[in-house]
This record gives sequence, structure tokens and C-alpha cells, in this order.
Amino acid sequence: MDITGAILIGSTDRTAGTTFDAVNPATGAALTPSFAEAGPADVADACALAADAFTVFSDLAPEQRAQFLEAVAEQIAAIGDVLIERAMAESGLPRARLEGERGRTIGQLKLFASVVRQGDWVDATIDPALPDRAPLPRPDLRRRNIAVGPVAVFGASNFPLAFSVAGGDTAAAFAAGCPVVVKGHPAHPGTGELVARAVRAAVAAQGLPEGVFSYLPGTTNDLGGALVADPRIKAVGFTGSRGGGLALVRIAAARAEPIPVYAEMSSINPVVLFPGAAASRGAALGTAFIQSLTMGAGQFCTNPGLVVAVEGPELDAFIEAAKAALAVSPAQQMLTPGIHGSYCHGVDALAAHPAVDVLARGLVGEGQGQAQGALFATTVEKFLADAALGHEVFGSSSILVRARDMAEVTTLLEGLEGQLTATILFDEADEALVAPIIPILARKAGRILANGWPTGVEVAHAMVHGGPFPATSDGRTTSVGTLAIDRFLRPVCYQGLPDSLLPAAIQSANPWKLARRMDGTIERG
Amino acid sequence: MDITGAILIGSTDRTAGTTFDAVNPATGAALTPSFAEAGPADVADACALAADAFTVFSDLAPEQRAQFLEAVAEQIAAIGDVLIERAMAESGLPRARLEGERGRTIGQLKLFASVVRQGDWVDATIDPALPDRAPLPRPDLRRRNIAVGPVAVFGASNFPLAFSVAGGDTAAAFAAGCPVVVKGHPAHPGTGELVARAVRAAVAAQGLPEGVFSYLPGTTNDLGGALVADPRIKAVGFTGSRGGGLALVRIAAARAEPIPVYAEMSSINPVVLFPGAAASRGAALGTAFIQSLTMGAGQFCTNPGLVVAVEGPELDAFIEAAKAALAVSPAQQMLTPGIHGSYCHGVDALAAHPAVDVLARGLVGEGQGQAQGALFATTVEKFLADAALGHEVFGSSSILVRARDMAEVTTLLEGLEGQLTATILFDEADEALVAPIIPILARKAGRILANGWPTGVEVAHAMVHGGPFPATSDGRTTSVGTLAIDRFLRPVCYQGLPDSLLPAAIQSANPWKLARRMDGTIERG
Repeated sequence: MDITGAILIGSTDRTAGTTFDAVNPATGAALTPSFAEAGPADVADACALAADAFTVFSDLAPEQRAQFLEAVAEQIAAIGDVLIERAMAESGLPRARLEGERGRTIGQLKLFASVVRQGDWVDATIDPALPDRAPLPRPDLRRRNIAVGPVAVFGASNFPLAFSVAGGDTAAAFAAGCPVVVKGHPAHPGTGELVARAVRAAVAAQGLPEGVFSYLPGTTNDLGGALVADPRIKAVGFTGSRGGGLALVRIAAARAEPIPVYAEMSSINPVVLFPGAAASRGAALGTAFIQSLTMGAGQFCTNPGLVVAVEGPELDAFIEAAKAALAVSPAQQMLTPGIHGSYCHGVDALAAHPAVDVLARGLVGEGQGQAQGALFATTVEKFLADAALGHEVFGSSSILVRARDMAEVTTLLEGLEGQLTATILFDEADEALVAPIIPILARKAGRILANGWPTGVEVAHAMVHGGPFPATSDGRTTSVGTLAIDRFLRPVCYQGLPDSLLPAAIQSANPWKLARRMDGTIERG
Repeated sequence: MDITGAILIGSTDRTAGTTFDAVNPATGAALTPSFAEAGPADVADACALAADAFTVFSDLAPEQRAQFLEAVAEQIAAIGDVLIERAMAESGLPRARLEGERGRTIGQLKLFASVVRQGDWVDATIDPALPDRAPLPRPDLRRRNIAVGPVAVFGASNFPLAFSVAGGDTAAAFAAGCPVVVKGHPAHPGTGELVARAVRAAVAAQGLPEGVFSYLPGTTNDLGGALVADPRIKAVGFTGSRGGGLALVRIAAARAEPIPVYAEMSSINPVVLFPGAAASRGAALGTAFIQSLTMGAGQFCTNPGLVVAVEGPELDAFIEAAKAALAVSPAQQMLTPGIHGSYCHGVDALAAHPAVDVLARGLVGEGQGQAQGALFATTVEKFLADAALGHEVFGSSSILVRARDMAEVTTLLEGLEGQLTATILFDEADEALVAPIIPILARKAGRILANGWPTGVEVAHAMVHGGPFPATSDGRTTSVGTLAIDRFLRPVCYQGLPDSLLPAAIQSANPWKLARRMDGTIERG
């Protein structure tokens, strides 16, 4: 499988007059080949094909759609090492990380295949007719979920496989029955094209309409804007910056028909260190904190960007260990020159902030675009006095917030914006202090972690990788885990239709053998 | 229980410097007493109380919240005939209709109580820890749904009981665990106050925090705007006009923290009459159509405002019967002078439209504010040439659209905006024509009805009273039926917490005896 730099509109390759190059962030060197910049005509054609494919794709029996998802997984596996090598060159991420990420990508496609087969996503619900009910009979009512329509997916820079072309959003949209048009991330266009060709091969192998998938490489905001504005697109999945996500939200809201945007945007992932844990194992926690902070150059949505604790001698051991660990922590390659520039800008602004002290810095990098870790400190009062201190600095930067007492910890937590995660570090002796904090954290975050670190997001049924604004633009959903399929579904009720005209999911004979809610109670299929 | 004209902030009654009067639409006479106009300070205080009440109310065990819903139902029943008489005077609706609507209001509160008890709404999901998994262990992950926070509810003019103060939105929000602040509809403030006092009595009787419910009567857009803008409000339920709904959507989107608005706005509820049914029973269908059109002066969200059929002799019997039925159809009282004025304006505009013919009018009313039914005709081509012809005229007005063939019927349906309902009238011989239409209707509407009429919305598990924009602002949900509880829930994941700190819903011992998804498979509690 070759990288050609093409735009993939269904089964057709296209070139363009304007091109761009991928850059190796470690060397600054351009990688070959050049990539076509997709434009408005490409957007329109991809969306038209997606709309054409919708009815067939969304009406597939679960087994067929599950087989398609598995075929995508197999085609990605079949690309082989060229995928890993290209992703390493484009992202600066190490081999082991990318091999693990490929495994996650393939695993989540297969997990969604199992979800599609199992069929709970249909939420098949039947209220049988009550012809003799007084004063009025009840008609036969049957409800099922259907796909919302073609979906636009914007890949993330920091997961060139697991949250890009065939990543979580695409897998969830496919699982729901939505054709997908991907706006490829310009930081890894070759990786993107390899995966896009794998998806296309799976579409062809399964005999599906070509419009089930298209891939639009490009660097401009106009490209993404045109895609979200296209009237055939019915939902958007995005992972990236707050500014980028909000721009898409605004475009979607201004359409003649507004559509949902699922944008995962920014989070500082507060960590609450309780006194007992600080006293009993403060030093160990301080070291572990820096490990989580600096992993992958801190380029995770769930990076721990804030630690709050009551000041005092118990906290000092944590701080000293964290400072010592960070001071010897090597600088790490960042994903792009732009991300590195933003990181340096954010760290410099904190270092220069009059309310903030620099506790420690990591080692200075020797190559281009390497992140030097940073740990700052302030107080609750000062933190709450400037909203800018609560904004995410994407990378290995964190701020320790000293509280005078637990009441001030509570004040800080109440003052935070919405978060993807909130972490509590505590011993059994702390539980009376922890218990009243948990409902506050549940209002603020999508995931609450006990005695762990927020980096590392399990792809599972119970996972929530989401949270109140501005962590995401829609805190009712998740981008990671099987619940993500719900983003791309909507309910339709069928009243009084004969079996011959009903979709299979809600026909009386239950040909798909779904679990169905009959008169309010779920019955096994 | 007396009507005092007060603002109800939790358990406190308030007056205001500015007041307004309820008007009997049949006489134009003001009704006593005058009602306080709630203002910004009332909004702020109601929302502060709601936020204070949130944690306690949202954490109630299902049995306790179910008992509260049942207590609200009982308190409404206990108001007695004064509620019906006041609602008749304020709305012009007849006694039988309002008694039925009271039954529906009480019934849906009790239905939600049963839903809360049953517990599927929690979506309790547990992925147990896999400590020995390689290369990394899996942590214990548990997910449950929690209430989104305090909810603002805007009552509908056309259902002064079932979709107003303690109507569908309020019942669904309470069921989810959300405190509710109601912006009372100024067309029925006395009815609203009676119901509000019943809700307050239930809050007190159950020993719940007073902030679980507040009631803000008023006439201004500023009142509603201030409520939606209040940072403590986390979701909005609205039923009304497209203009009103979109205004709230804009306010919600412009907040520092944008929130979801569930606005049910406008729908013309297309009816597709197939040739076989027209031929075999066109006259009967024509008469039944006018019955549905004129029921309740046409003041239903699901009123059949458009009929499309292939022209020809089969259609003529339908048209002649409809014309004859409408010509003898009595004018009916509308809800408010304003609604009557809008209806007359909409009908006059259609009558004067060069692309539209007047087929028939109903009888002229003898009293104030009565709706004279109206049936118009045009062609597919003309209909699609002017988007204004597809806008809802709230009341007993409908337009018959003649198609040359089924291809033109399809073109019309593809050209429609999103709808609450779509109705198909067909005989067995039509099924080959019907089958390809159904997927189109499923993309356009929340409910597809066969051989019935869209007016009459069952409160049931399988009901969808929703649909793509502009029928609603969020086509992923319903406002009627038990699925509405999902509007006011969001998922939270708990990772690695000991049972002692977990919410009851996901504790290992399953104290609530919920059905739970264990490792992806639902197990009975």
C-alpha cells in the first residue's frame, strides 16, 4: 500500500492544485510525498456520496455491519510496519507507544463489532396495542434507534491512530450506521492516508456503497468549516483545542439545520491529594505524579494539570519528591512544532505570572521541539482570582494549588470549569473527608478516579471520556468506550405499521434476536 | 387552595410591583386576581435554591423519588374541580378535554414513578478489574447516569396541564433527579399557580429541600431569557413557537457554559395518501382528516398541516369529502387572542398566496377568537418553490399538495424540513409503493404512523414526540414518553473507588437491585 498524497472521495483518488507537506517534528524535515489540499468541491462530492450510501449502510443487519468493522480492523493490521514507521516519522512518538495504539485502534473496532452484534444500541421498545382500553384504545407503538446520517470526523493530533482516521469517533459512527467523511489531521497525513486506504479496502471487500467513507487531507480551517456546514452532514466528532472546537460548534449552530458537535476540547484534570495519603506516602505519590505528568510529553487530554492539597508538613514530602523527579525528567519530543510552540508559550506565561511560583523544571531538550516539564505553585485564592490559571497548557505542565484547609479545597473545586477527569488520592483514614467531595466532582467531571492517575483511558463499556463544558461541547456523551455509539443515534417511533413494513429490529418475530423492552420490561431475544 | 397571584420561590410566596392579568379568551374579560411579574431577583433566588437542593434531590434512592412523583400526582388530583374550572376559563378548552388532560398529567407522573423505581435509567454498567491482564491491568470501572442539574421548564399554551407546570418536561426532570424552575405560561397563570402549589405541597410532604421546585409567573421575554442564562440552570425544556425556541437556543449557546435546550417548535406533520387507499376509501379518509384537523381548534403540535397525494379521480373523492366536512365544521375557541391573531394572519397569507387555492373554509365563529378551519391546495412544484408554504400555521389549517406521480411525492418528502410525525394512509395493494418511502420518513420525522392520524400522542415507552430540526432543537430525544428522562441525565464513570465511597447504584452488593451491564451483558438485579 503506497502513500500517494491523494484525496480519497469514495473509491476515487483525486489530486489538487495546492499541496502541503508532512514534517518530521524531530528534524523539521519535510517528508515525501506532498499531499493534496482538499477543497470545497471535494467536500461536496464526499458528502453527496455519503448521503447516497446512508440508507443502505444504516439499514445493514447487525452481523453485516459488525463484519465491516472487523474488516476495517483486519485491513489496518495488514498495513504492517510501514504504518508504524510512518506514524513515528510524522508524530515523533516512539514505536512501542504506536504499536500499542495500533492495538487499541484495532481492539476498539472489534469491540464495536461486538456491540453492534449484541444489539442493545437499537433500544428496541414495543408497547403492544391495547384495542380494548377505555376511553381510547392504545395503538401498537414500536421504537428503535437509527443512525443520524453522515458524520464528519476530525482526527486528533495526539492519537494518530486511535483517535484519527479510523479511531474512536469513526468506529462509533460506523457502528451506529453512519457514513463517515474524515477531515485528516495535517500533522500525520501519510499515516492518515494509509489508514484511509485500509478503510476503503474494507468498504470494497464488504460490497458496501463507496460513500460509506471518504478522506479529505488538508491544512485549512476553511476545509473543516465547509465540511461541518455541508447540509448532508448530521453530526460532528472532534478532538482538539478549545478554540477549534468552539469554531466548529458555532458553524454547526449557524446552519439552516443546526447539528450536534461532539468536541472534546480542554481539561486540566484536577488531582485532590488528601492529608492522610500525603502523610503516609507523599513522596511516592510525588514521584508517581511526575511520571503521569511527563508520560508522552504530557500530550494527553487527561494529563494531570492541577494538584490541590492542604498545605503543611505532610504536603512537603510530596512536593520535594515531585521536584526531584521532575528535575531529572528528560525532555520529550512533542507532536508538532506548533504544539511545542504553544506549550512553551503557556509555560512562559505561567512562569511570568505574578501569582505563580516555579517549583521545578525538567531537563532541557537537546533536539527540536522537545518539551521541558514544568511544575508551578500558587494558592487557592490566587488561582481563583485569574481564570487564565485554569486553562489547559497542553503538555507536561502542572500547577500545585495550596489550600489552607479542606474548606478551601472545596471552594477551589466548586470554582473549576468542567473536566474530563478528577482524581482523588486518599487513605482509608481520609474517607470522611473524601465522601462529601465526590458529589462535587461528579458535577464537574465525566470520570472520577481513586488512587490512580488520569492518563490511560480504558476502552470499555463503563468508560466515560467526556464531561461538562468546556471539557467537551456535550457532557451527555463519551468519546471513548462503547457508549459513544449513542452519539450517532436517534430514536424513531413506528405506530400501527404492519410487520411487512416494519424494520427488522422491531418486527414481531424478532429476526435479529434483540433484547427488547416489551411494555416497559426488557425481554431477552 | 387559593390563587393569590404570587411568585413561588421554594416555600416562600412573593409579590411584585408589576402585575398582569389572565384573560378569558372567549370573552376578553380579565380574570382575578392579578399575577406578580417575576423579575431577575426572583430568577436568581429560585436558581440558587435549586442549586442548593440538587445534591440531596439527585441522590435520593429511587423509591423516595418515585414517592415524590406520586405525591405530586396526588396533590394535583386533590385540587379538585377548581383546577378544571380555572383552566376552562383561562384556556377556552372544554371540560372533557381538560379532565382528560388532568388524567394524562397524573398518569405520566405515575408512569415516571414506575420508571424511576425500575431503574433502567441509571444504565448501571460495571467492568470489573482485570488485575492480571497483560500488558496492563484493567482498573475497576463503574458507570451510572446522574441528573444534569437544575432544569428550566417553559410550559406550553396548548396543554395547560399535561405540558405546563407539572407536565411532561417537569415530570421527566424530576424523575431524573433535577430540581425544576418553571417559567409559567402567561395564558394560564391561575391554573399554573394551582398546580405549582400542589407541587410545593408534595415537596414539603416528602421532606425535600424547598429548592426542588419554584414557579415564576410572568409575561416578558426577559424573564425567560434570564432564567436560561442563569449559570445554575443546566438544561431547558420548552414547547412553543419556532421563534421562541430559537431565541432560547441562542441564549443558551451564548452562556459561558452552553447548555442543552430541548425546544419543541414547529411541525406540519405530512400525511401521504397512497393511491389504493384513496381509491378504496377516499371519502371516509377525507372526513376523518377533517376530524383530526379541526379537533381542539387544530391546536396540536401534531396537527396534520399537509396532505400529499397523486392527483387523479381517486383523489377527488377524498377532496370532496374533506371539503364537505370542513364546510360544516363549527368554528372553535382558540387558546388566546394572540394565537387566534396568528392563526388568522397565517390563513390570510395562504389565501392570498398566488400559488395556493382555497379548497374550503369551516364555519365562521360567532364569539371572540374562534378558529374558522381552512383547507388549501397547491402542487408539489409550487410548494417547493416557496419555503413559506412549509411553515406551520398553528390551528386548523392544512394544505393539500397534488403530485403528478409517486416520484413527485418522493421529491416533496425529500424537500421537507424535520417533522414530529409523518403519516401514511395505504391499503395492502399500496405496500410496494410505501416501502421505499419509509426510510425517507424515518430521516425526516420522529414518529411514523400507519393508517391513523397524528393528533393524539400516547404517553408510553415507545413514544417519540420529537424529530429533526426544526420540529425540535434536538432530534436525539423525545418530550413525551418515558424516554424523555434521558434528556436530563449524563453519565459519570467511577474508577477504582472502594464500595464505601461509591454511589449505591453501582456498589457491588447492588442495594437498589438494578439491572446492570456487567462486562457488557445486562444482568437482572
